[in-house]
Order: sequence, then structure tokens, then C-alpha cells
Amino acid sequence: QGTRDHAPAQTALRDRLLSAVVACFKRHGAAAIDTPVLELRETLMGKYGEDTKLIYELQDQGGELLALRYDLTVPFARYLAMNKVTNMKRYHVAKVYRRDNPATTRGRYREFYQCDFDIAGRFDPMIPDAECLKIVHEILSDLQLGDFVIKVNDRRILNGVFAVCGVPESKFIPACSTVDKLDKVPWEEVRSEMVGEKGLSPEAADRIGEYVQLHGGLDLIERLLQDPKLSQNKLAKEGLGDMKLLFEYLTLFGITGKISFDLSLARGLDYYTGVIFEAVLLHQENEHVEEPVSVGSVAGGGRYDGLVGMFDPKGRKVPCVGVSIGIERIFSILEQRLEASGEKLRTTETQVLVATPQKHLLAARLKLISELWDAGIKAEMLYKKDPKLLKQLQYCEDTGIPLAAIVGEQELADGVVKLRDVATREEVRM
Amino acid sequence: QGTRDHAPAQTALRDRLLSAVVACFKRHGAAAIDTPVLELRETLMGKYGEDTKLIYELQDQGGELLALRYDLTVPFARYLAMNKVTNMKRYHVAKVYRRDNPATTRGRYREFYQCDFDIAGRFDPMIPDAECLKIVHEILSDLQLGDFVIKVNDRRILNGVFAVCGVPESKFIPACSTVDKLDKVPWEEVRSEMVGEKGLSPEAADRIGEYVQLHGGLDLIERLLQDPKLSQNKLAKEGLGDMKLLFEYLTLFGITGKISFDLSLARGLDYYTGVIFEAVLLHQENEHVEEPVSVGSVAGGGRYDGLVGMFDPKGRKVPCVGVSIGIERIFSILEQRLEASGEKLRTTETQVLVATPQKHLLAARLKLISELWDAGIKAEMLYKKDPKLLKQLQYCEDTGIPLAAIVGEQELADGVVKLRDVATREEVRM
Repeated sequence: QGTRDHAPAQTALRDRLLSAVVACFKRHGAAAIDTPVLELRETLMGKYGEDTKLIYELQDQGGELLALRYDLTVPFARYLAMNKVTNMKRYHVAKVYRRDNPATTRGRYREFYQCDFDIAGRFDPMIPDAECLKIVHEILSDLQLGDFVIKVNDRRILNGVFAVCGVPESKFIPACSTVDKLDKVPWEEVRSEMVGEKGLSPEAADRIGEYVQLHGGLDLIERLLQDPKLSQNKLAKEGLGDMKLLFEYLTLFGITGKISFDLSLARGLDYYTGVIFEAVLLHQENEHVEEPVSVGSVAGGGRYDGLVGMFDPKGRKVPCVGVSIGIERIFSILEQRLEASGEKLRTTETQVLVATPQKHLLAARLKLISELWDAGIKAEMLYKKDPKLLKQLQYCEDTGIPLAAIVGEQELADGVVKLRDVATREEVRM
Repeated sequence: QGTRDHAPAQTALRDRLLSAVVACFKRHGAAAIDTPVLELRETLMGKYGEDTKLIYELQDQGGELLALRYDLTVPFARYLAMNKVTNMKRYHVAKVYRRDNPATTRGRYREFYQCDFDIAGRFDPMIPDAECLKIVHEILSDLQLGDFVIKVNDRRILNGVFAVCGVPESKFIPACSTVDKLDKVPWEEVRSEMVGEKGLSPEAADRIGEYVQLHGGLDLIERLLQDPKLSQNKLAKEGLGDMKLLFEYLTLFGITGKISFDLSLARGLDYYTGVIFEAVLLHQENEHVEEPVSVGSVAGGGRYDGLVGMFDPKGRKVPCVGVSIGIERIFSILEQRLEASGEKLRTTETQVLVATPQKHLLAARLKLISELWDAGIKAEMLYKKDPKLLKQLQYCEDTGIPLAAIVGEQELADGVVKLRDVATREEVRM
């Protein structure tokens, strides 16, 4: 439940999608690493907040207690700490596992691919962070998924907001995970969860509400930098200063048109410490609708400067920022689009079918195809001793093989091969 | 334990290796499929003989009872049956899991890649089987791993041997798994296991010994076809007849020089029903040694005509034959070879570093690199506001970036970029 087989057509589409994502990661100079699907259970515990319950655990069959990785970020941090790497730009495309309620039509599975790009190391502020946003912008543009917006916020700004609204520090994380729901439910509901479940005062909730419903660009950053309360808060000031710098860099990249500084963005995971972001596709259901409707997040990430230190015996920190591309949701969209278009994706790359028009020519086919393979040519033949020529040509048409190399008795006698273009039926002897 | 992280250099080497294998699979017209790492526990049970105890099971956290796949063959058979596919040529490159004793220096891990190519469908005999052997031959030749031999046998011949030697049918499988040890231990030990643990009569064991120590080519097949006892056994006769046909096809492929019909080859798994094979590298430890020493199996496979039927509610069979490339052992060899050569593999593909020779030029770098990325050029820059030019050029040398695109105050004023060849130090303004 919540997993699926990929048939050849789906695998071909997925390979195309993953290639586009990996091409972007390589364009930005990332190296690839690979880590095991299995991690020690203790490595994963305490990193995912409420979602820790969704981790798949292996049975204790003797030896270490193991679990399946929940994302690629925690294994990356573990890798950096274990190998004492303090500086690295890497990508990792691999499957992760979550015991979540599957919603397969919307592309939510229990086993799914993640495509992660991360920059680890101590650098001048916001340069790697800006590159992560540029990457999201490039990938979503390349894939032609339609209009999108990348929401950006900063955990320090959020925490500053909570502080100036009178939330005690112990309640920052629960408040954060409640704010995170604002993209799905209206403020009224979020407010009542804050006051009810999370035990904030109604006044604090109302004050929070004034901030977290704001979104905009450089203008909003400037306004909040002047905000009498926020500007007094050290964390918020730092966050807003960096946000301003980020917007400067994004302006140089020419992508601010798709960026929204959005104070309602919180992101669920515990480990973020600075900039956070999330890309959503905007889908104009019909032209008369005024507000574009969001079809959900397709990329997300942020800065996590404390995670690597959790795995280092001396707690040495390695600042990191990274992005994860939500390939499954994008795959669902592309799959539906392909289906609607009626286009048939080739599942093989075969260039030529080796065929014979008469009986008793299996040996000739085997010799020829062997020569073709040895010459690096992608070639197939039917696994029959005496197939009909029509069947062989039909196979080419069904599977999209463009050429047939035909050896009949005449060709054998003349020492030639007849090469046939399957679509045009043109033939040349060679 | 028994798993490992792959650092960038290892990942780059592995990608190169996997690309070569996949290129061969595509050359033979295979489509790719993907199946989940998780399978229902019941799917895997009873398919691997004694090795079933090596399967990783997931904890029962509610819902289905799950296990990690042990190979890619059983999931493929499950896929065919579930989707009622009766005809398919597919490859699958993915990780599998075995709770075995790891021997990491020899490339034996608990998590490791398998590269499988299989042909499913009802075809004329031995044509797909011959192609599988051709594939092993191509891959081992392509990778230049040194001399190798592909041992071939047939489960029907082995069972025929057991029958004519007086082994009761109920003991065929145990006898088979004992014979399989002949590549590691001398006949005397195998014989005593047969008589002791497996309860065969000493006479039967001796008779078996006469057969399973034979190996050769077409001549041996012909001889056994004339063997007074074996030629009376229906299974053996079928197997030998097909083996003769196989050798005919392999002769047309021109690869019999590396093929050895070897009656000691048994292969451990339960599901094989016909041809079986295994490729081993031959390693001349030193020139004075007379017999080449085997460094172990790097590919194996065979025919399994009954496995798909085990997953079909009506037991409908789909004949299959396939090969699995033992990528980990090959990887270990290539890794050691690379280390010995001192060659440094590039881990990124970056073409150009965007650099500045003076201070206060971060904006110029960000603008230029953004243009390069948008033009599809693989580009990096240092994440510092004001890096020294020497540091930037040093980074190129360390990571193998061939070009530096330099924008200084003069270049900015002139509206040009200085492109520097890092190795030759040649520069052009453009």
C-alpha cells in the first residue's frame, strides 16, 4: 500500500524527469554521493518533530537496530559529521520512506524519490541560499509546469514574531507547526488551534495573525525592518537583514518575479534554523477565477545550521542550506499531461531490427545482430526461428524501431544487407 | 554494518560502471522498470531455499507485513504476474538487501546494487538464453576486467545425473546445493557432505562425482549424449539437446572461447529450471602458477520457467531467462585499480568558474553566472564576497575546472569577460 511498480513507459518518463533535475544540479557544480537506505534507528530519532512516528523500523533480527531513511537531509548531515567533511556541494537522488497516509492520485506515496541539492560550509551570508532558490527557479522553468511562486521566509523572523507577540520560547516550535497549516486552512482555524491545542493566549494569537498573513517583496522587508516591535528583536532583525540581502542577490539573478516573502511559511521540520522556502504551482482552474489556486508544494528547503553538529561527538557545526525537489508530484502532473496528449513514449532505444524474409535464416540473423552489438548499435531480433517478415515489421512499428536490417537468401548470396526505413518503406542495399 | 556511504569519487566511478552496464542492456533492446524496495513478506518466502533466513523483515507497525527485496528476480516475476505481462525484455538496476556476513574487502555487502536483464515470454528454445550469455560476454569485455570464463550448465542435466546415480527425487535440491560448493572446496569434502549431512549412499555420491567433475565444450555434450545411462534419462536428454543448440548459437556469436560447459555448476537458488550460468574472472596471480586462480563470480543467471506461475492465481507460467551482473565485486576491482593508478576521477562536470580579481565585484559575478546557468553552461563561483583571484584559480586546479571566466573592473568597463584556460594560462577577452 502506498508504493507502486513503474512500468516501462512510466520509468521512461521518470528517467526523463530525473535527468532534467540532475542536469540542473550538475550545472551548479554539485557532486553526487550515495548513502544506504538503512540508517541506525538512533540517527533518525528526534529529527523530524511530530513526523518521527512515520519512520519505518526494521525488525530486530539481531545486530543493530535499523530504520529506513525518512529523507536525504539527515543522512547527509550524518555523512558530513562521520567523514568530518566541512565543505561540500552535493546532490543525491534516491528513494525515501514514510509510513504516511498515501494519496496516490496527488502523488503522495510511502516510497518516493527525493532529489536533493545541498551546500555545506561556512560562507558569506545568503550566497548559497540564493543559489538554492535559483535552482528551484531553473528546474520549474525547464520542466514547463506552468506558473509558480517560491515562498520564502526565515525561522529567525518567525521566532522573532512569536517573541514580540508574547509567546514563550518553549512554544515556538508548536506555534511554528500550527502556522505551517495556513496554506491549507483559513486563519480562523489556525487561530483556534493556537489558542486551544497549543495554549497560546488569544491576544498573542491575534498579534501573530497580523504578521503571518503578510506577504510581499523588498517593500515588505523594509516595512518590517521599521516595525517598532520587530526591529527591537535581535533574531527578527538578523533574519530581515539577511532576507534583504537575499532579495538583492535574487534581483541580480533576475528571478524576484516568482519570489514571495511570505510570513505564513513555517515548514514542519524541526531542523531549520534560517531561511526556509517552498515552491508551489499556481493553477488557473478557469480564467474567470480571480485568485490562482495552488496545487501544492513541488519543492522546498532551507537552512539547517545545527543538524550536522548533532552527529559530531564534539558538536562541531557545519552550516548547511539545501533544496529538495518533490519529484513525485511533478511526475504525476507530467504523467497526466502525457496521457491527455495521447503521445506514446518510446520505452527502448533500439535503432534497428534484424529481420529475415524467408525460413531457415536464423543463423544469418544471429551473425548479423552479433556484429551490430559489437559495433555498439542497439539492435533486436524476434526470438523465433522463422518469423514472418510482416510480424517483424509490425514489431518495429509497435515499438518505434526506425530501421529494419533485412537479410534474405538473395542478400546472403550477394553479401549485402537490405536496410529498410520502417516509416517510409524506403530500402537501400549496403 | 555491511553497508557503506559512497563519497563523490566512488559515486562517480560507480556511475561510470553502471552506465556501461545499462548501455549494454539498452543495446539489446531492454526497457527499464522499477519496483519498490519493500515487498510483501509472503512474496519473498519460499523462493530462496536456505537463504530465506537472510531476508530483512520490517517491524510490524500495523498494516501489511513487509520485507526488503532480496534480489530483483522475484519482484520481476511478481510484477509480470500482477500485471498479466507475458512478454517482456527488461532491465532493472537497483539495490537489494541480504542479512549475510559482510566481507567488504571482497565486495560483499548487506546492501548492494544488482543489474538485471531478463527476457520473459514463450519463444523458440535457447535464443534468449544465448543472448543472456552474449550480454555477460559484452559487459565483461567492455569493462576490461581481464580474462574470464562463463560456466554453463542446465538444472535438467544435473537432475538427470542425480536420477541415474540413484538419488531419490526428494534429495535433488539438497544434492544440488552441495554440488554448488565444488568451486570452493575439493570433491572429497563435497562427497562427505553428500553422504553425511544429505544422506546419499556412498555409491551414489561416487557416481555423481564422476559426472560433476567434467567440463568442456561441444565435444563433452556429444559424449554425454552418447552416455549409456544419461541418454536414457528424459530430463538429461532434453537438457543436453538444448545445451548443444545453445553452443551452436554461441558459436554464431563467436564467444564459445570463453564458455565452459561445467557439470559442477549448480547455483544455489531454488527457482532455476533450465540453463544456468556463472561468470568468473580468472586471475593469473603470478606467471609461474599453472592453473589460473578464480577471483569469484561476477555475473550469474539462468532460466526460471516456474517462478511467475507461483504468483499467478491460476498458476499460468511465463518462461523467463535472465542474468544478474555482480556490480559490487566489479566495483571493488575497479576501485582498487583506480587507486593503484593514482588517477584522480573528477567528481563534478563544471566547465567554468566565474571569478573576479578585485573587491566589490560580487554583483558582477552573480549576474554573469546567472547568464551562464541560463545558457546551460555548468558554472561555479566561490561563495565569498571578495575571494582572492589565486584562491579562485586554485579551486579550479583542485577540482579540475578547465576554464575561468574573469570579470574585473576593466572588463566591466569594457563590457567584456576574460576567459582563462586554467592549464595553459592562456587568456582571451570576449
